[in-house]
Parts: sequence; C-alpha cells; structure tokens
Amino acid sequence: MQTPPLTLVIGNKNWSSWSLRPWLAMKRAGLAFEEAHVTLRQDAETRAQCLAHSPSGKVPVLKWGEETIWDSLAILETLADRLPAARLWPEDAQARAHGRAIAAEMHAGFQALRRDMPMDCIHHRPGEGMNDAVAADISRIIALWAEARGRFGEQAGEGQGGPFLLGAFSIADAMYAPVVSRFATYAPDLVALGDRDGVARAYMETVTSMPEMRQWVLEARAQMAAHD
Amino acid sequence: MQTPPLTLVIGNKNWSSWSLRPWLAMKRAGLAFEEAHVTLRQDAETRAQCLAHSPSGKVPVLKWGEETIWDSLAILETLADRLPAARLWPEDAQARAHGRAIAAEMHAGFQALRRDMPMDCIHHRPGEGMNDAVAADISRIIALWAEARGRFGEQAGEGQGGPFLLGAFSIADAMYAPVVSRFATYAPDLVALGDRDGVARAYMETVTSMPEMRQWVLEARAQMAAHD
Repeated sequence: MQTPPLTLVIGNKNWSSWSLRPWLAMKRAGLAFEEAHVTLRQDAETRAQCLAHSPSGKVPVLKWGEETIWDSLAILETLADRLPAARLWPEDAQARAHGRAIAAEMHAGFQALRRDMPMDCIHHRPGEGMNDAVAADISRIIALWAEARGRFGEQAGEGQGGPFLLGAFSIADAMYAPVVSRFATYAPDLVALGDRDGVARAYMETVTSMPEMRQWVLEARAQMAAHD
Repeated sequence: MQTPPLTLVIGNKNWSSWSLRPWLAMKRAGLAFEEAHVTLRQDAETRAQCLAHSPSGKVPVLKWGEETIWDSLAILETLADRLPAARLWPEDAQARAHGRAIAAEMHAGFQALRRDMPMDCIHHRPGEGMNDAVAADISRIIALWAEARGRFGEQAGEGQGGPFLLGAFSIADAMYAPVVSRFATYAPDLVALGDRDGVARAYMETVTSMPEMRQWVLEARAQMAAHD
C-alpha cells in the first residue's frame, strides 16, 4: 500500500525504552519517517507535550497521515498488518504465535527490571539495580530467549534461520532490544542467571551490532551532550 | 483453516480478569474449546500448576494442538490472525489500528485500577478501593470508551455500527470486559469521573448483558460456592 507521511513521536533516546521499540523496527524495515521529540523527565511540561500528540499522554506515538496510533506494541502490530512486505512478523504461523507471546510478555511484564534497571544506553553501570526480583526477571528472559532461538532461530528453511529470536529480525526483537541495552549497561552475570550455553550473550551481540542500534546510541549520546 | 483441539487454561472465574479476556472472545466467536483450570491465590502450588501449562508461569494459556500460546493479548491476536472469519478485529484498517492502541493501553496500563479494584465479579463492593490514582485511571477509561464509540461505534456502513467499542464486538471489548465487571462491583461515580453523556454507562450495559458474560458470572458463582 501507498504509505502516507509517517511521524514517530518519541522521548529521549537515552532513556525512552518504549520509543526505541517502534523506531528500531521502522528503521530496520527501511521506512521513511519523520521524528518528533518530547522531553521526558520534566513532569508537568512533558505530560502537556505528550497529550498534544497522544490521548494516553505517553510516547511513542505514530502519526500515520491523519491517524494517531499510540503504544509501542500497537504501533508494531499495525505496521506488520499494513506493510506485510516489511516482514515484521515471520511467515511461519507457529513462529508468529510464539513471537506474539514473548512480545506480549515483555509488554506487560518484567516490572522489576524496568523499574530498577532503567534504560540508560550510553552509560555503563555494572552492578547497579540488582536485587532478587530483577534476577528472577533476567533468568526468565534468558530462558525465553534460549527457547525462541532453539525453536525458531536456527531453522534453515526458506526465509528462516538467522541470529534473531525467530530467525530473521521481527517485532519480538524490537520488543527486547531495550533489554539488551539494559544488560549492556548494568552487566548482570548472565551465566550465573542461566545463560550456561552463551545464547543470551550471542543474542546481545546480534542486537548491539545492528547498524540501527548503533545509530540510536550515537543519537542518544548527541542528545545527552546537548543537555549538558 | 481446520482448527486442531483447543484448550484454554484459565484461573478462577471470579478473580482471573486476564482469563476472562480470551474466554469471552472465544465464546463469542463460537469456537469449540475445552477449559482447564488452575487454582489462583495459592501461591507455591499455583505457580507449579501454571508452569506445567505455561513457560511464563501465568494464565491464561491457549493450547492449540501441540502449540502453547500464553498471554491474553497474544492469544487474542493469534485467534484473529488464524481465524479471520471470527472477525475479532474489524475490517476497517483505521478501526483496527485504534482498537490495537486501546487494547495495548489496557494490556500494559491502569495499574492502580488493577491493584486496588481487583476483579470480583460476583460481589458488590461500592466505594471500596477508590483513591486518586484509581480515579485517574477510570477517567482515562471513560474518555477512551467515549472516543472509540464516537468514532467507530455508531458508523452505519457495511459491517459497522453496533453497541461495542468499535461497533461490532472485537478484541478491544474482550480487553475491557473485566473493567466493566470492576465498575459493576465497585460502583464508582462514573458521571463525576467524566461520563457526562452516559456513554460509559450504556457500554457497561452492553457488555454486562452479553450472554457469554452472564455465563461467565454464573460459572464464577458456582466455582465460589464450591469453595465455601
């Protein structure tokens, strides 16, 4: 389909993990879009800025022509729905269902990790934020990544295979990219938390080395330097 | 497509709001499925029961033949994806995108309402659980329902119209059905919280009078009586 002008309204690139998710998928899919920025962490003003773009008062928001679509997962599902050529979900129905389950688990879960290890992609803060609840979240994520990679990541059929959670890059990877960033920042001991065969470590390398992720981090660095 | 045997693993019908969501959509779509029950609110045992069905340790879980799909929203999206004749999302692309935004907002949000007014569908507890954060959640939900009903609920085009959030019943209604149940139980003053034209009250009546909702509440009552 012909795509009308797209604008993605996002927060600060160092901190806004929810903004990274659709941004990464849209960049990866090669979509042309404008960015609009709201300043997070400045409460009253931020909320007013967000409400100007989004009825929920939160970013990210995708402006699709005259339409306003909010929430990271809703934006990603809508992109997959309208732009099938972007292949944001895999062709295989079982992989797609599994991808939706792990994407939804991220969307509604892992509160301890999100609260105690907030995304801070340009810094290195090893050891900060760790506690039992965070450790449990991390162990579950390691198991979840290993299961997805084991079932879908290594298949060699047509259009399958590849180093991402379901083989090729998908919405599932967009959802977990900020977790990869947190693991890089806070450096939890992944092996002690369950990554005995190095799957999580290898997956982190896959995501971290995506050109689009490198671009996001560079732009986060530039934004934060401008703040100082 | 030919549907393999479906089993929906759910919690107690009085309390498990997440279980209600896919159950309601599957009943409404006329799907034949088995129910399997785990007992919530009995911590260690419950977690073991859940883990037997679901890698995330949570219900609901859909068993689709050999597949295991967890999380309410992932189950609903997978049903919509595989069973288009069930029309769990509307045909209209804008309505579908809007429906995904409000479904996702429910999936990841309204924590105060969920914490302080837990679903308890067979009881009437007016006034319990109210506080400023809950009031803010309720006001946002009232506005969200009114916007959806105003934009999509009253359209009279082919396949449009009807008393649900997007006209015909959809995943958006499945996601908000437990909120309707909470409003019935805790009886917040909807008019004072923003329902000045009665849209929220009318929508509650629409959901409450669904035969499938009545069946759920009757079965919740029977389950709770068996507990006593």
